[in-house]
Amino acid sequence: MQLSLATWCEVETYLERSPGIILPIGSTEQHGPTGLIGTDAICAEEIAYGVGEATHGLVTPTINVGMALHHTAFPGTISLRPSTMILVIRDYVTCLAKAGFNKFFFINGHGGNIATLKAAFAETYAHLADLNIPNHAQIQCQLGNWFMCQSVYNLAKELYGDREGSHATPSEVALTQYIYPEYIKNAPLSPEVAKGHAIYSAADFRHRYPDGRMGSNPALATPEHGKQFYNLAVKELSNNYLKFLSEQ
Amino acid sequence: MQLSLATWCEVETYLERSPGIILPIGSTEQHGPTGLIGTDAICAEEIAYGVGEATHGLVTPTINVGMALHHTAFPGTISLRPSTMILVIRDYVTCLAKAGFNKFFFINGHGGNIATLKAAFAETYAHLADLNIPNHAQIQCQLGNWFMCQSVYNLAKELYGDREGSHATPSEVALTQYIYPEYIKNAPLSPEVAKGHAIYSAADFRHRYPDGRMGSNPALATPEHGKQFYNLAVKELSNNYLKFLSEQ
Amino acid sequence: MQLSLATWCEVETYLERSPGIILPIGSTEQHGPTGLIGTDAICAEEIAYGVGEATHGLVTPTINVGMALHHTAFPGTISLRPSTMILVIRDYVTCLAKAGFNKFFFINGHGGNIATLKAAFAETYAHLADLNIPNHAQIQCQLGNWFMCQSVYNLAKELYGDREGSHATPSEVALTQYIYPEYIKNAPLSPEVAKGHAIYSAADFRHRYPDGRMGSNPALATPEHGKQFYNLAVKELSNNYLKFLSEQ
Amino acid sequence: MQLSLATWCEVETYLERSPGIILPIGSTEQHGPTGLIGTDAICAEEIAYGVGEATHGLVTPTINVGMALHHTAFPGTISLRPSTMILVIRDYVTCLAKAGFNKFFFINGHGGNIATLKAAFAETYAHLADLNIPNHAQIQCQLGNWFMCQSVYNLAKELYGDREGSHATPSEVALTQYIYPEYIKNAPLSPEVAKGHAIYSAADFRHRYPDGRMGSNPALATPEHGKQFYNLAVKELSNNYLKFLSEQ
Amino acid sequence: MQLSLATWCEVETYLERSPGIILPIGSTEQHGPTGLIGTDAICAEEIAYGVGEATHGLVTPTINVGMALHHTAFPGTISLRPSTMILVIRDYVTCLAKAGFNKFFFINGHGGNIATLKAAFAETYAHLADLNIPNHAQIQCQLGNWFMCQSVYNLAKELYGDREGSHATPSEVALTQYIYPEYIKNAPLSPEVAKGHAIYSAADFRHRYPDGRMGSNPALATPEHGKQFYNLAVKELSNNYLKFLSEQ
Amino acid sequence: MQLSLATWCEVETYLERSPGIILPIGSTEQHGPTGLIGTDAICAEEIAYGVGEATHGLVTPTINVGMALHHTAFPGTISLRPSTMILVIRDYVTCLAKAGFNKFFFINGHGGNIATLKAAFAETYAHLADLNIPNHAQIQCQLGNWFMCQSVYNLAKELYGDREGSHATPSEVALTQYIYPEYIKNAPLSPEVAKGHAIYSAADFRHRYPDGRMGSNPALATPEHGKQFYNLAVKELSNNYLKFLSEQ
Repeated sequence: MQLSLATWCEVETYLERSPGIILPIGSTEQHGPTGLIGTDAICAEEIAYGVGEATHGLVTPTINVGMALHHTAFPGTISLRPSTMILVIRDYVTCLAKAGFNKFFFINGHGGNIATLKAAFAETYAHLADLNIPNHAQIQCQLGNWFMCQSVYNLAKELYGDREGSHATPSEVALTQYIYPEYIKNAPLSPEVAKGHAIYSAADFRHRYPDGRMGSNPALATPEHGKQFYNLAVKELSNNYLKFLSEQ
Repeated sequence: MQLSLATWCEVETYLERSPGIILPIGSTEQHGPTGLIGTDAICAEEIAYGVGEATHGLVTPTINVGMALHHTAFPGTISLRPSTMILVIRDYVTCLAKAGFNKFFFINGHGGNIATLKAAFAETYAHLADLNIPNHAQIQCQLGNWFMCQSVYNLAKELYGDREGSHATPSEVALTQYIYPEYIKNAPLSPEVAKGHAIYSAADFRHRYPDGRMGSNPALATPEHGKQFYNLAVKELSNNYLKFLSEQ
Repeated sequence: MQLSLATWCEVETYLERSPGIILPIGSTEQHGPTGLIGTDAICAEEIAYGVGEATHGLVTPTINVGMALHHTAFPGTISLRPSTMILVIRDYVTCLAKAGFNKFFFINGHGGNIATLKAAFAETYAHLADLNIPNHAQIQCQLGNWFMCQSVYNLAKELYGDREGSHATPSEVALTQYIYPEYIKNAPLSPEVAKGHAIYSAADFRHRYPDGRMGSNPALATPEHGKQFYNLAVKELSNNYLKFLSEQ
Repeated sequence: MQLSLATWCEVETYLERSPGIILPIGSTEQHGPTGLIGTDAICAEEIAYGVGEATHGLVTPTINVGMALHHTAFPGTISLRPSTMILVIRDYVTCLAKAGFNKFFFINGHGGNIATLKAAFAETYAHLADLNIPNHAQIQCQLGNWFMCQSVYNLAKELYGDREGSHATPSEVALTQYIYPEYIKNAPLSPEVAKGHAIYSAADFRHRYPDGRMGSNPALATPEHGKQFYNLAVKELSNNYLKFLSEQ
Repeated sequence: MQLSLATWCEVETYLERSPGIILPIGSTEQHGPTGLIGTDAICAEEIAYGVGEATHGLVTPTINVGMALHHTAFPGTISLRPSTMILVIRDYVTCLAKAGFNKFFFINGHGGNIATLKAAFAETYAHLADLNIPNHAQIQCQLGNWFMCQSVYNLAKELYGDREGSHATPSEVALTQYIYPEYIKNAPLSPEVAKGHAIYSAADFRHRYPDGRMGSNPALATPEHGKQFYNLAVKELSNNYLKFLSEQ
Repeated sequence: MQLSLATWCEVETYLERSPGIILPIGSTEQHGPTGLIGTDAICAEEIAYGVGEATHGLVTPTINVGMALHHTAFPGTISLRPSTMILVIRDYVTCLAKAGFNKFFFINGHGGNIATLKAAFAETYAHLADLNIPNHAQIQCQLGNWFMCQSVYNLAKELYGDREGSHATPSEVALTQYIYPEYIKNAPLSPEVAKGHAIYSAADFRHRYPDGRMGSNPALATPEHGKQFYNLAVKELSNNYLKFLSEQ
């Protein structure tokens, strides 16, 4: 069930049977010459809908913009500051926790979000304890990064080997091709692609990774691969979500 | 063109012909017993896509959560604090302004966002002047509230008279029915509905407006009405956007 | 009664009979070649004292500096950032709410304050709910913009027609002339005056409105007009304040 | 010259002859059973006007509310948080520094403001250096506490000895009596008055100082004393301001 | 060389030969019934001094308090909020970057710091770009977690197997025993120790991990082990630091 | 007892006999051509250990970096912004207050910290009242500046007269010489030394005080003097701490 497509009365009823909620979070950032700027949000959202369906879980609207400061030297990238994103997550969880939700399962499509999300969870637990809301000690946030699912990782390795790279990867591009087949992009990709550099400032990133890819060959992606990735991610994250709900 | 479905290279090309960008912003908040929680975001997004198509304008991902603190006593509502939302808007505009965008057209679906958006625009202009980016004095933010379009207002008046009310209105519900006909909700609506109270805290709001509606009768809405509202809003806001672009 | 001229014991006694308090808020900003920089604060303060007298209401010291970022390219303007002003309002209301005040009536002299004040009210209600003070659900802030009183608007229209303009208006200048007749300024005013431009950054504002006026002819102002505006505003806002107090 | 009563053109002219500006800052806080809540703002403002006249210096509107958190258990007290007040001072000085002012002379009426003001000055210098405005290295803030003037101190000692105390002192009460003779308050004062306790939280303060006085006997104050204090403070602070202006 | 024991002139000279600086960061948090509260800071500091000596690198004072909110239900724990810690790191790096340092090597003793440190690095790069300091695009922060060194991990595995656990580990306790042999603590440790629970709020953490240990048996630690860990960590992190310096 | 070298169980026991805790705070800032950058932290820490021993008080890890913005034009200086430092102090005190500590005795080595510390104490009392923790009205912070002890002042006067100056003083240098005799620095000191200038921005400070000293002759310092200062400060501050504990 999508929260956006529910009424408040339906949410009230939902809370009688489940304290869990699924929050897709992506990013709006360059994904190389052929990857969609919305890749991370699109993937997280679609997988979250799949998990929601499979588990009868409620899915919030997608947080479309995350922590992508290192990509901001490429036009079209939008990023929150980590300090802003911490407040956003705090505000989301606080509203929902006050309404009675306890189990927050973030389905994340962007590696760059992980650190700030973890910081935000810590900040939020302390904030809720300060507010002294009745369920504050029960609030739990868990992070489900679809691209780090074991099954996804294995398939990417099998299909692409080390051409998977670490940004604008064929696996995530394949997934967007499966979701939006009419938006498959064609653009020349240099055979050589930078890789292995640490990530520092936005200017430095663009200097080191001139076309935005990090060691990847997204030309290997196909919509059929995307479908496989989608199915694996939904299955594995659905299991994770149900396990999360079942734990005290 | 949706920013999410473009590549950074396409954005670079777009910037050669236009400095304008369209940002849909909604809210995730209760809309009475039959209105969708995502009403404001759904409407803003769909109209923004229409305006983008009509004007060849670039449309960012939707800001799904806005300033809805007064609705937070109803489950399912998510709100940013005004102070958080100001930072979010500042971060969005700053990233895009650095990339060369000058004209920011916010298509807004929620009256409760207006004050904070205006405050955020002022904060952002000052921030960009402080950063001293080359185009800081050219940055312009404009607000397009679809529900305040003259043509929309006239039709709502004609169709619903004073049963339009001011929250969970038949006009916005009609628009969501047009977009999501499969999510038309049926629930009993008391014939009497509260109206005319000022808005204070969340607790006070729920006390005064027990089912979430403010003077409205959303049972009057039909998908056909929604189509009419959609067309009027797209037309009027497209004109506004083009006028905004043409002004110095 | 002015809060400044009372003792804490008198405030304690006052609270036994009334939970209301009147807060004048203005701005310190350019008002064209002949308008006083303190115009908005001077008008708000004087009217607030009048309302206080007429209603036996307690009046706080004036918030002299508000949100005037768009005027800061003219020397002498002082502005808070919206994010700062939100904190200021939050701090004021929090202190007074803890002491037992529930009804906060802001008498405002500056259009540029409105959006940030509304954002601040929302932020403050949520803050007080977080603090869980006993009266948090009773706290109500209301905004009384003297220049938007119907009676004031009608008189300005009658006296000045479209030369009222929207900044450095003859009506507000007249009011300061009535209050400070010894500070009536004479300076040449160009017959042509800019108008109709939207407000963006400070640099842009000064570029579009080179002498600071927005479509107004303050040379039409007289102290006698000022007296009329004063009386109308005090009367209308006194009624508004009493109505506000009487509402639950 | 009061900034409030000047036009922006007059400020422009003033800046050609002086980079100095005088900023009165007070507090809105309990001053015992007979002291005015506005005592600190009233004194600072009146003395600042006197200094402005004596030195042809420009005087900003008074910052009426300062750092008085420890007094907030008494009704009528309004306080900024130190973190808020730092932002307020930063915003004031930044606006004026951008306009060309370099020498900021704060005439202060409240001991509790001193620490936060000093912190704010440091924060502001760093902020202005970050903004890289042309005159950032010339910006200087100086603090003139009228009640700590040597001449004031000597007279208070002579007139009141150790009954001067440290809050709701006869010297500050005398000064308000001189300024507002019609607001001289009569209320019984216990002969015994608490003194010598350190200042911690608001609750603790009210517990230790039940009527708000700290070791003082304000019943010794007379308007004539007030006039003497006024003259001494204006003279000494005028000298200080002129010396400040003359220093590089 | 310790920054604390140098003069500013020596730092000036140092900068002529190296842009690198080493920043030890720990935590002040419970480490079970026998682990020192300062364990993470003590280990990070001592290893940082060793790395500084081995590489002729400058070592800042230790950041003794980090992100340990989840341990705060145990007395003696001190933690920064993530949002505070981001500002602290930003302030440190900004001061040093303005002085000419480019390469910031954080030697970290606490797993709970990692997410917030990474968020802080991203925030800081963006902040320095905003300040537009000359070297902003050269600023690089790298994280060296001593307990995650391959050589350290291998030895811990060899010595303790799965009794290493993940908090109050024998390896870190051993290291503090080597550094402070006179502070080896004896306290009964239950043979059963909780493990495998995710980390949420402070209250939840103490509930799940009642004595503070996470799956570890610190009774296995010896000062001799500590010496081995120290040598391995210093060697591996020295290599990492030199490699970091040598990279562009 | 050092908190770093204690276990949480020992802290629990300690709290049964004392609610007091000693927090050394210094600074990391230039101290002239021969003074150690860590002077203020080194002195505060060593004296705090001495006081802790003499009074059986618990001593936290040293806050090594304080408010030294005015020294940041000299390489090696690290400073927090006042606004950051307020949050740091708030976080420290909040964690410890929740654990049951009531009496916070800050042993401070840096004059530049005083204003911000006092502001932080006020902010923290209000924060703890907002959190409504059981002991909030009992929380007391006291500041012990070792260099302002009467006995220390007298000895410095006797030994150095007016060559004590106000920064990089022989007394503080002597104390570091006593603590770190192997780090006594030799560097030429100009016989003339700037003095008497007010402190404004960092750039201005370096301009006025080119070698970093303020009116001092640190060449007069000896380790033997340092020992005397150490003994006097420990004795006087131990008495102050015990008195603080004994007061209600």
